[in-house]
Amino acid sequence: MFTRDVKSILGELTASRTERKIFMVLDDHTLQYCWPVIRGFREVPEDHLYVFQPGESRKNLNNVAEIWERFGALGIDRRSLVINLGGGIVSDLGGFAASTLKRGIPFVHVPTTLLAMVDAAIGGKTGINFRGLKNEVGVIRLPERVVIDPVFLKTLPANELLSGYAEILKAALIANAGLWKRIAPNSLPAPEDPEWEPLIRESVRIKHLIVKTDPDETGLRKALNFGHTVGHALESELIKSGQPIPHGFAIAFGMVIEARLSVMTSGLPARQAEDIEMVVRRIFGPMPELFNHPERLIPWMRFDKKNQGDRIHFAFLPRIGAVEVHHSLKEAEILKGFQQKIS
Amino acid sequence: MFTRDVKSILGELTASRTERKIFMVLDDHTLQYCWPVIRGFREVPEDHLYVFQPGESRKNLNNVAEIWERFGALGIDRRSLVINLGGGIVSDLGGFAASTLKRGIPFVHVPTTLLAMVDAAIGGKTGINFRGLKNEVGVIRLPERVVIDPVFLKTLPANELLSGYAEILKAALIANAGLWKRIAPNSLPAPEDPEWEPLIRESVRIKHLIVKTDPDETGLRKALNFGHTVGHALESELIKSGQPIPHGFAIAFGMVIEARLSVMTSGLPARQAEDIEMVVRRIFGPMPELFNHPERLIPWMRFDKKNQGDRIHFAFLPRIGAVEVHHSLKEAEILKGFQQKIS
Repeated sequence: MFTRDVKSILGELTASRTERKIFMVLDDHTLQYCWPVIRGFREVPEDHLYVFQPGESRKNLNNVAEIWERFGALGIDRRSLVINLGGGIVSDLGGFAASTLKRGIPFVHVPTTLLAMVDAAIGGKTGINFRGLKNEVGVIRLPERVVIDPVFLKTLPANELLSGYAEILKAALIANAGLWKRIAPNSLPAPEDPEWEPLIRESVRIKHLIVKTDPDETGLRKALNFGHTVGHALESELIKSGQPIPHGFAIAFGMVIEARLSVMTSGLPARQAEDIEMVVRRIFGPMPELFNHPERLIPWMRFDKKNQGDRIHFAFLPRIGAVEVHHSLKEAEILKGFQQKIS
Repeated sequence: MFTRDVKSILGELTASRTERKIFMVLDDHTLQYCWPVIRGFREVPEDHLYVFQPGESRKNLNNVAEIWERFGALGIDRRSLVINLGGGIVSDLGGFAASTLKRGIPFVHVPTTLLAMVDAAIGGKTGINFRGLKNEVGVIRLPERVVIDPVFLKTLPANELLSGYAEILKAALIANAGLWKRIAPNSLPAPEDPEWEPLIRESVRIKHLIVKTDPDETGLRKALNFGHTVGHALESELIKSGQPIPHGFAIAFGMVIEARLSVMTSGLPARQAEDIEMVVRRIFGPMPELFNHPERLIPWMRFDKKNQGDRIHFAFLPRIGAVEVHHSLKEAEILKGFQQKIS
């Protein structure tokens, strides 16, 4: 749900049930910048706050076990509620810990990054990294509620806003040509801009719709993967080489390549692919140099857990505002997508 | 599904899908006694067998992480299949590992104990022990198939058969008075007796029916808990004091006390409660001495994860063949159930 008063909403959500113990998962950042915004919605004992250091590497089994340990010892039960206050790392970690403790404690996500508001917190994916692989372990389980308040956008560095914006562009590209037309010419709204509300609402609506049709990712949900096959590979290779870029940047650049592949495979008009590339370059800057060495990305694509067997799967656009799943390409075909001049 | 030819069934289940990699979870016992029965249903590389030492204490996070690690490194994907060959410990551990690896690899249970055939393998509960608590961590996720073949009953020690028999008695008590009438006068069938087939089929049918109505245990599924509130407490306290008894024995004795409480609370005719007690004593022997010190059991009941808040919840019988959930009692009332002479 969308709100302009997250504190009252959380108060209402928990007030009528006095027996319901509240537990929170948050990181050092959200403890400092976001917790003050909601503090006092209800009395929450300090040891009911599980706070961990920010960073993707903390989304690990050790921290999950710590949450099980702490919340279990404090007497959490199935009528309790876990509130995950933070970005995607918090909702993934806290959601996984809650989903598996006592076979499932209800939880609520309060996303504090744009990316979490439009993507990570929506659709029930939870998980941790394991064996060096992202989200290698996890479950799909819907939160009891997702409470989205744009007040938290003010707490974000610019890079974080951009990162979430890539998912909004994706939502428009796969499902709403009108939205694309409206946002394509513009630059990023400022954090306080009321324009965020319709953008977030529409992105969430699109994701909900797709997830509802296919909660377990056997078909249509793969549509959400547009830009992600190449994007994840780019992200992983850059992490490995010690030059990480924000997730959303990787997805945005991934969408450019996958739009080119859509021209070859799904009949996306070439001008629309160029339009996508232009918008991405304007907002996210020049394409990564690594795209000149696509052979370094292929192994990562093969690892994607959405793949089955040996083929590499994609979601492609037949036109802006529509999407097709169940495409798979051979490596040679994929490499062609990179062959246009990168500048 | 019930079969007399588990090997062929597993062959059929996996043969048509050549891309589907097979992984197995089993313990030293089932490797020795049950694996030879199905070996050769398909080629399974030796390192695709995860074998662990038998025993409740092995149902732990370390072993789950080992499965994630091993199967992940061998390239398991969502089109693979995990086959859990064993009793409840194997299906709980293997089911949990599969349910959480890559957000869910499909799995099949091949239960090899009577208890697993009629209870543990049915209904999608998976989990491990954590913080000294049974099934403290886990998820509910249905297997793709449960393949039940009574051929494995011959591999069991007598205590194991008895343990599963308690769940068959429970199924009759909560849902099928006719079945109770038929089995109450008899002793345990021999392992090869064809009588097992109708008993197993009917118990599974009853459990399926209840679970289907309430997969997440918010209501009717608690009916399956008859005998378990007291039974689990008894089991836990005896483990703690170094004198463990088989799970099914604990449940059988628990049903005697909960039948007495049903007389007080739900109108179960006293003669029916006595009938239950007589049958349990005849099959499982004298009631545990610990029932003379019920105050040692109360704290365990408070811990049961099916409880919400501070009350202790039960499922009670209004008559043999029917069950009511949502009963909760205070400690003083519970103690009365133990006050009849124990001999």
